[in-house]
Amino acid sequence: MAKSKFEYVKQFESEDKCLPNCWIVIRVDGKSFHRFADVHHFVKPNDDRGLNLMTRAAQCVMDEYKDVVFCYGQSDEYSFVFKKNTNVFNRRGSKIMSNVVSLFTSSYVFYWPRYFNTQAMQYPPAFDGRVVLYPSDKNLRDYLSWRQADCHINNLYNTCFWKLVQERGLTPAQSQERLKGTLSSDKNEILFNEFNLNYNNLPEMYRKGTVIIHQKEKELDSNSLSPLERSPRNSVSFSSQGDYIPRTRVQILHCDIISEKFWTEHPQILDGIKK
Amino acid sequence: MAKSKFEYVKQFESEDKCLPNCWIVIRVDGKSFHRFADVHHFVKPNDDRGLNLMTRAAQCVMDEYKDVVFCYGQSDEYSFVFKKNTNVFNRRGSKIMSNVVSLFTSSYVFYWPRYFNTQAMQYPPAFDGRVVLYPSDKNLRDYLSWRQADCHINNLYNTCFWKLVQERGLTPAQSQERLKGTLSSDKNEILFNEFNLNYNNLPEMYRKGTVIIHQKEKELDSNSLSPLERSPRNSVSFSSQGDYIPRTRVQILHCDIISEKFWTEHPQILDGIKK
Amino acid sequence: MAKSKFEYVKQFESEDKCLPNCWIVIRVDGKSFHRFADVHHFVKPNDDRGLNLMTRAAQCVMDEYKDVVFCYGQSDEYSFVFKKNTNVFNRRGSKIMSNVVSLFTSSYVFYWPRYFNTQAMQYPPAFDGRVVLYPSDKNLRDYLSWRQADCHINNLYNTCFWKLVQERGLTPAQSQERLKGTLSSDKNEILFNEFNLNYNNLPEMYRKGTVIIHQKEKELDSNSLSPLERSPRNSVSFSSQGDYIPRTRVQILHCDIISEKFWTEHPQILDGIKK
Amino acid sequence: MAKSKFEYVKQFESEDKCLPNCWIVIRVDGKSFHRFADVHHFVKPNDDRGLNLMTRAAQCVMDEYKDVVFCYGQSDEYSFVFKKNTNVFNRRGSKIMSNVVSLFTSSYVFYWPRYFNTQAMQYPPAFDGRVVLYPSDKNLRDYLSWRQADCHINNLYNTCFWKLVQERGLTPAQSQERLKGTLSSDKNEILFNEFNLNYNNLPEMYRKGTVIIHQKEKELDSNSLSPLERSPRNSVSFSSQGDYIPRTRVQILHCDIISEKFWTEHPQILDGIKK
Repeated sequence: MAKSKFEYVKQFESEDKCLPNCWIVIRVDGKSFHRFADVHHFVKPNDDRGLNLMTRAAQCVMDEYKDVVFCYGQSDEYSFVFKKNTNVFNRRGSKIMSNVVSLFTSSYVFYWPRYFNTQAMQYPPAFDGRVVLYPSDKNLRDYLSWRQADCHINNLYNTCFWKLVQERGLTPAQSQERLKGTLSSDKNEILFNEFNLNYNNLPEMYRKGTVIIHQKEKELDSNSLSPLERSPRNSVSFSSQGDYIPRTRVQILHCDIISEKFWTEHPQILDGIKK
Repeated sequence: MAKSKFEYVKQFESEDKCLPNCWIVIRVDGKSFHRFADVHHFVKPNDDRGLNLMTRAAQCVMDEYKDVVFCYGQSDEYSFVFKKNTNVFNRRGSKIMSNVVSLFTSSYVFYWPRYFNTQAMQYPPAFDGRVVLYPSDKNLRDYLSWRQADCHINNLYNTCFWKLVQERGLTPAQSQERLKGTLSSDKNEILFNEFNLNYNNLPEMYRKGTVIIHQKEKELDSNSLSPLERSPRNSVSFSSQGDYIPRTRVQILHCDIISEKFWTEHPQILDGIKK
Repeated sequence: MAKSKFEYVKQFESEDKCLPNCWIVIRVDGKSFHRFADVHHFVKPNDDRGLNLMTRAAQCVMDEYKDVVFCYGQSDEYSFVFKKNTNVFNRRGSKIMSNVVSLFTSSYVFYWPRYFNTQAMQYPPAFDGRVVLYPSDKNLRDYLSWRQADCHINNLYNTCFWKLVQERGLTPAQSQERLKGTLSSDKNEILFNEFNLNYNNLPEMYRKGTVIIHQKEKELDSNSLSPLERSPRNSVSFSSQGDYIPRTRVQILHCDIISEKFWTEHPQILDGIKK
Repeated sequence: MAKSKFEYVKQFESEDKCLPNCWIVIRVDGKSFHRFADVHHFVKPNDDRGLNLMTRAAQCVMDEYKDVVFCYGQSDEYSFVFKKNTNVFNRRGSKIMSNVVSLFTSSYVFYWPRYFNTQAMQYPPAFDGRVVLYPSDKNLRDYLSWRQADCHINNLYNTCFWKLVQERGLTPAQSQERLKGTLSSDKNEILFNEFNLNYNNLPEMYRKGTVIIHQKEKELDSNSLSPLERSPRNSVSFSSQGDYIPRTRVQILHCDIISEKFWTEHPQILDGIKK
């Protein structure tokens, strides 16, 4: 059983190093989650348990990969932003992506009972993953804005759609027909006039999605936020350069990340080099 | 919130189509599984529960992806072979790999209690994934032989190592020292002379690893093997070309895949086109 | 002027190794050659000087790269087939492709006066290049068949088109209109009925394009073909494995490469390993 | 001769789009130019004819590709910088690179007689090419600094080496031995003390290499530089966005591009978006 005569097959593996000095974004996305949500009776249009479980899983990824400086999630997707100069896994794209998507999935299944209590998971769900590189800070912010605009557009639509189905008794097909061609302003008006609902009063988590960022230890004392508990994985932390990593906790926000305000208030996020 | 002004960022995604007419191999591999095995008190050198759980997770992948014609696992790794002419996910490498690694991970956590009973999982494990292309049948077989030779070499070593630790009371360092530079024949002799153990009498699952192949429905009646039950996912099956997919069940084997015999007996596996 | 502080920029170069055990095809293709042919008064639809110069340039590439086992040209394009197991330039795709396209271009300009005599080249032409991998012999032969079928289809069309323009006095637009929607059989008939031309009597170089293969030295004596003279570059020859390379000369053919006959008569070409 | 049954082979071609918003650098590099220089009796250490011919060829590339905003050459290499937002050839790396290396090579052979007069070219030379992406302006400038530092280091060494050989009668091996381990300051001193040569008085073309940038038409009148004549290719110009391209001429400089001064004086070069 000479292993060596077969080892040439290793040469068929290809390197896929990410271009240096680019933001590395890993996005995980639920596979066939319409069906998964139906089978598990997710509340429509937004299920708090499901959204919070997604965020719990994202937090596990941030705990493990300290070079993730920002993550943003909505619906059944989450994006993880590795700092520009990260050297995690020697910047091999497939390695980074597969580890993130695997840990995210694993955590989703692991923490399910904490969010769904006695409602058992019926079958193991899956998420796909992709790697995208963004050379400039503007490109990265536009990416994140794209995802948050997507959140807004889908949530406004879904809110209307389900109101029409749940409270007006329309079939899904009728509801879809009713909304065809409507603008955002039309949908806001439908909600306000027909359902007495001011869209802007809906929880920000539904309208804005979820942001997770690291919080510096020194900020913790004076901060009233109660960070989620951390998993046993925490004791292992990855520093691509091997330096000392200050203990950090994460901050979970539901806020606008399209306008300047957020980025002015958190200048350290885009300042990838000094971090 | 004009989504359109941000949508240009989609152009930063790159295609990574796999070269046509090549075997696509996805290998998943446990991340830091030494620690995971320690924390969960895996029996050394082989833990039946852990190995069977790996195989259960691999089976879920085969149930979902009918174009996987063969898979092979050992230790904390599993390789999935997609037929040469698969068109699953339009042959996009990252898409295929991330879905496989995610479903594998998900199933591992999901089915954990069925194999570990009351012993709770302490933290969510992770697996990395990679895509490798093999142009010829010979290359593919050499890849699989490489993995099986690796299984043999590691298992023989580990069997000796743990015998010395568990029955001779050597420390791990002493055991390692004792085995340094020994050949396979030396290790076989240690086992036989010192521990009265004929290595070849160990279970084939430990020595050969695990092969999973599809079984044609018509073979099922006359076949005494009891196939594992199938998950609820089964009702969804992926055919890249959209043709009718005959219901298949899987066959789990622990046999030699290096020599000709296996391939002569299962000619349909490498006959990717006709399958 | 510390070079070292800048050397990090080398890490931005990416490897692009060709998958092992695949045929590597480099195709060079004239850039804006319609204009180049017009400016240099190429005879339509086929200019012997231009075609022979293309072949001369291709021969220079074959002289230099002994691992090119076959090349095929037609019109303003040439395809070079490197044997499956070549290790030239460590199989780096960009390196191989750029060297081939550069040497081809260089030779085209260099040998121009030998084919166009006193007619001076008006401006430097350019060719683009691409690398394509083919895993199986069948894929490779289908690629070559595709190019030869393309030669046939274009040449039949062009022969009709220019007959109508040159002998019937049609404008290009009228000629194009006349041929719109015609089948091969229609075009053969137009040539035969209107111009008394049996298409099959045209020179094979026009109808089949040009094949160049290596000729073993020992075959040379008994072979009446007069191989073109060889360039001064010949003294430098590249062996990727550094072995002794038998002196070979090339054979230039204008024959069918779609049917079995050619490949049966030249079995050594596809037998990439033993070559 | 159904072309269609073979056309599937086109699917084996892979896309290689350059990541958006990055500087695209194409570097061409002489293949075996030591031998080429020897055969053609290039003056050592610098041959004005050879260097000027390189620059003439580079100018042809700039004439053709208006999106090349900067190019830098030294010895037997030239780097072409395409602006960040170029859309030439839809940003396909192989297409851009092969066209540039081919046109460069073609122009080198084409213009040879204009620089070497009656001394005939002995055989067609070749250049290899590569594509490298740089995400930030700093990365690009560091790349260019790296090449200019390389020019300086090599030229200082070569100047000493050939003085020792040509004026002291040392063999190449003796000259090499003499210079082993010397610092820049040592070489400067050897030149000054032994050959009465102040290195800084050597022509800037040797010490700094050659920069080519576009010159705005309006600047031409008041500018005393005599731009080299333009090739017939000029009438064809490529605008990736199809906009009107102002007629430009090029400016050839031999100056420092490592320090700030040059970039402060030519701010339009790095301002890729607005250009």
